[in-house]
Amino acid sequence: MRIALAQFNTSVGDIRGNTEKIKKLSAEAYDLGADIVVFPEMSVCGYPPEDLLLKKHFLENNRLAVEHIAKNCPDIVVVAGFAELNENGCFNSLAVLQNGEISKIYRKSILPNYGVFDERRYFRPGTETVRIMIKGMAVAFTICEDVWRLKWLDSFFSEIPRIDVIINISASPFHVGKIKQRQEILSQCAKHFQCAVAYCNLIGGQDELVFDGRSMFVDSSGKVVCQAHAFAEDMLLADLTSVENKKPRLKAVAAASKPDKSLPDDHISEVYNALVLGVRDYVRKSNFSKVIIGLSGGIDSSLTAAIAVSALGAKNVVGVTMPSQFNSPDTIKDAQVLADNLDIEFYALPIKVVLEQFNKLLTEMADWDKNTVAYENLQARIRGSILMSLSNRYGYLVLTTSNKSETAVGYATLYGDTAGGFAVLKDVLKTMIYQLAEYVNELHHREVIPVSVIKRPPTAELRKNQKDTDSLPEYDILDKILCGYVEQDKSASELIRDGLPEDRVNQIIGMVDRNEYKRRQSPPGIKITPKAFGKDRRMPITNLYTSENF
Amino acid sequence: MRIALAQFNTSVGDIRGNTEKIKKLSAEAYDLGADIVVFPEMSVCGYPPEDLLLKKHFLENNRLAVEHIAKNCPDIVVVAGFAELNENGCFNSLAVLQNGEISKIYRKSILPNYGVFDERRYFRPGTETVRIMIKGMAVAFTICEDVWRLKWLDSFFSEIPRIDVIINISASPFHVGKIKQRQEILSQCAKHFQCAVAYCNLIGGQDELVFDGRSMFVDSSGKVVCQAHAFAEDMLLADLTSVENKKPRLKAVAAASKPDKSLPDDHISEVYNALVLGVRDYVRKSNFSKVIIGLSGGIDSSLTAAIAVSALGAKNVVGVTMPSQFNSPDTIKDAQVLADNLDIEFYALPIKVVLEQFNKLLTEMADWDKNTVAYENLQARIRGSILMSLSNRYGYLVLTTSNKSETAVGYATLYGDTAGGFAVLKDVLKTMIYQLAEYVNELHHREVIPVSVIKRPPTAELRKNQKDTDSLPEYDILDKILCGYVEQDKSASELIRDGLPEDRVNQIIGMVDRNEYKRRQSPPGIKITPKAFGKDRRMPITNLYTSENF
Repeated sequence: MRIALAQFNTSVGDIRGNTEKIKKLSAEAYDLGADIVVFPEMSVCGYPPEDLLLKKHFLENNRLAVEHIAKNCPDIVVVAGFAELNENGCFNSLAVLQNGEISKIYRKSILPNYGVFDERRYFRPGTETVRIMIKGMAVAFTICEDVWRLKWLDSFFSEIPRIDVIINISASPFHVGKIKQRQEILSQCAKHFQCAVAYCNLIGGQDELVFDGRSMFVDSSGKVVCQAHAFAEDMLLADLTSVENKKPRLKAVAAASKPDKSLPDDHISEVYNALVLGVRDYVRKSNFSKVIIGLSGGIDSSLTAAIAVSALGAKNVVGVTMPSQFNSPDTIKDAQVLADNLDIEFYALPIKVVLEQFNKLLTEMADWDKNTVAYENLQARIRGSILMSLSNRYGYLVLTTSNKSETAVGYATLYGDTAGGFAVLKDVLKTMIYQLAEYVNELHHREVIPVSVIKRPPTAELRKNQKDTDSLPEYDILDKILCGYVEQDKSASELIRDGLPEDRVNQIIGMVDRNEYKRRQSPPGIKITPKAFGKDRRMPITNLYTSENF
Repeated sequence: MRIALAQFNTSVGDIRGNTEKIKKLSAEAYDLGADIVVFPEMSVCGYPPEDLLLKKHFLENNRLAVEHIAKNCPDIVVVAGFAELNENGCFNSLAVLQNGEISKIYRKSILPNYGVFDERRYFRPGTETVRIMIKGMAVAFTICEDVWRLKWLDSFFSEIPRIDVIINISASPFHVGKIKQRQEILSQCAKHFQCAVAYCNLIGGQDELVFDGRSMFVDSSGKVVCQAHAFAEDMLLADLTSVENKKPRLKAVAAASKPDKSLPDDHISEVYNALVLGVRDYVRKSNFSKVIIGLSGGIDSSLTAAIAVSALGAKNVVGVTMPSQFNSPDTIKDAQVLADNLDIEFYALPIKVVLEQFNKLLTEMADWDKNTVAYENLQARIRGSILMSLSNRYGYLVLTTSNKSETAVGYATLYGDTAGGFAVLKDVLKTMIYQLAEYVNELHHREVIPVSVIKRPPTAELRKNQKDTDSLPEYDILDKILCGYVEQDKSASELIRDGLPEDRVNQIIGMVDRNEYKRRQSPPGIKITPKAFGKDRRMPITNLYTSENF
């Protein structure tokens, strides 16, 4: 039996587009000799459809699409995920399409409702196993989380007499290092049931999430036999053949599965590719073609521009520098050099005169003072207004450039540097920003991001001689505190016990908590860590909790 | 047995503050002769604590607080809700405190995970009933949603030999007309079990939610015997006495429950009071004292200012008008008149010169054009920047003024009129805005909001002779479409079948879908309808669904 895993880039809500793609890929799999072709979780409607699932007409259309696929792919067994409304409620389901009709439906049992997942909001859990026979092979079905609970799965499958291969369809979002976890889980599963596992994962960006693909076949010894591309569409084939008195043999089909498809096991390149795909899909699926970025000559905006060029091509990226009297000639020059290196359109719109007029108007208020944070923020808001004006006039999507460290402590001006449609680096800590910048230069085999940008001490340049370290600790300390507090939910006393400086711990925790209101109004950005800001971390804005002991 | 229902205004995370309040109110209830005092759901930690519940130290502090209350209130039975971490997981629990210790814990069984609720994200369901005897009366416990599922509750309670009163602690958020639903549910419950029901609901604002209180006692015939204040703290007392061969008798204690406590059954006054409490609590619990509002001379900003004055007092509200060349002398004058009527601080900062400088700078870009929406939005963004500058300098919280109709169709400038900390009217449709404005004038027995403001056709005044109806249908049609599409999840064809004009239905649905990105970055606002924007309606931004048939 030949199995094809067709990981493809779905679009949420594009039932017609996804359906056409499934038909086309099914025909391709058939041409490659596959007996069965497997598509990711909810690939008919895209994942996650969120509250579209509360619309009855959405669920009806989605069902009609499944029936349409069945009718149009009679020669091959098609396995595809969809949202199913039936008399018992709504389910996260998998349809087995054979001979022009829906032959079986498996309903996901383990519904994740943590982190970015809200599946209990929409779905009821399935309770029944589904097994089919193809060419004498026993195929059992699971959906995503079902295989992550091995003990439960063991009891769930206890009634099934024999399983040769477990098919799992997934929409498993990327975060750094998750692939190792997946390989381990699938390997354990294969060994436990002494059978092959065929795992088909989604690829593509959807708002804050990036799905990384890397579908794989695992044999009954737990070995990953072959793995599909990361962050790209791919079709992976393997043959499962019976061997007398032994477990069936699983063999990759060389023709379709090119060697060394997975990325090198390097977190930085992995993150870079996730960011590139996330940007490309957000921009394209939102029907934009060009993006605009405010280039300060600093490392965050330089990296954002490099990622945008990788995602969309240089001709679709526009850079604007908007210096005030506080920007040094060095940073202004670096912005220009970066734009030249990336070969992107570049404009300079100095804000000094607008800033003066604004200041003159505000001087009518008593106690208005140029030497305060209000005046600093005004500069950022003028820049935000310029970028949005260009967006409105020319149809560019504005990419923002704040990193996770700044986003965490509120070191950003609301409606200023946070103004824009997509926050590319929102989940990337500053210490990783440096690694990514070095990676960009390695990737291009030349100095795309000027070394002077990488070496300069971070500064917002909103007043004379300003440095980030005027109000923040060094970034290596800051990022350790943030990792512990935000990603691991540790208390102040735990962080201090971990050896972090008490004064900084208390300062930073206070800043993180007080700035939830800014994050609530910031644009979506790509999740790359186990816990990102956004729907992954749902904190109240009105929050009087301090982690001191009661 | 005398029961006291102590509905009070908790603050999320303020474990110490909530605990002190519970101790104080318990002493008051004891002084009033109560045998048992009941506090709302999760009153120890505030509701909803959201992802604070993922912090182990938060749960530990919360438990210590419950033990502290027990020790400090030995003379009265105290019933209070808290988040409980034990060896089986985390539960939404109710502690019964007697004789200085935790005598019983009831764990909520029915965990809502729809609308604004995410309880399955945090809690496991409880499975056991808890009953105690006080002065010969049998008291059974439930938490919020538990009583909304009568059929389930019937089987859950089937083992209990006798119940004289069901105590329910709730954190039930307000929306228009919900009180009727609650009264019916509790009445049915009382009749079904042939017992009294003592219902204690939270009051107070928390981010997007307002809890309206209106705790009540219902007798075994299903009659509401007495009801506590709406939108205010209150203590409601009743005596339950045994009557031979009959159901125990429930009698309100006149001393504490003043007559006619509930609001008149009028949706407009109900909404007004919800908005006032929502604003007051957002501002105060976020440690602000003053708010600032951009006054355009239009009805939305006028109403927002009137609500702010009711919530915070005139001395804590600042109005600013920021006219351009497109504002008529009439609207400029109306802004001033309104400020005078409300007796608030008022400033005029005309934006014409700043706008000119901005425009001059942008004219350096090819094809920049003053006669486009980019130039219109620029005016709104200048105003947003001014308000935020004043906020940064003087510590005012900016209240935004967009209504639900505008928010739905994206008839607002991102970082312009959406710039601010709290969107008071975010869930109020334009047709209701008019009713609320009339109500304000009735309430004050004079023309606070000038009649000219109420009568003028709506306009954003961003270009010459602009009217909202240039690009939108009349508001009565618009609001009907929005009510059907947003609040009831109807499809285009269903709305057309309801008699709404096809061209407008398709236009408006498209606008609602396309503008999800703006809503995602808009400030939180007060939920007053069954489905508000915000965490109540979780739509993907990247969304290619159109409700046409597959």
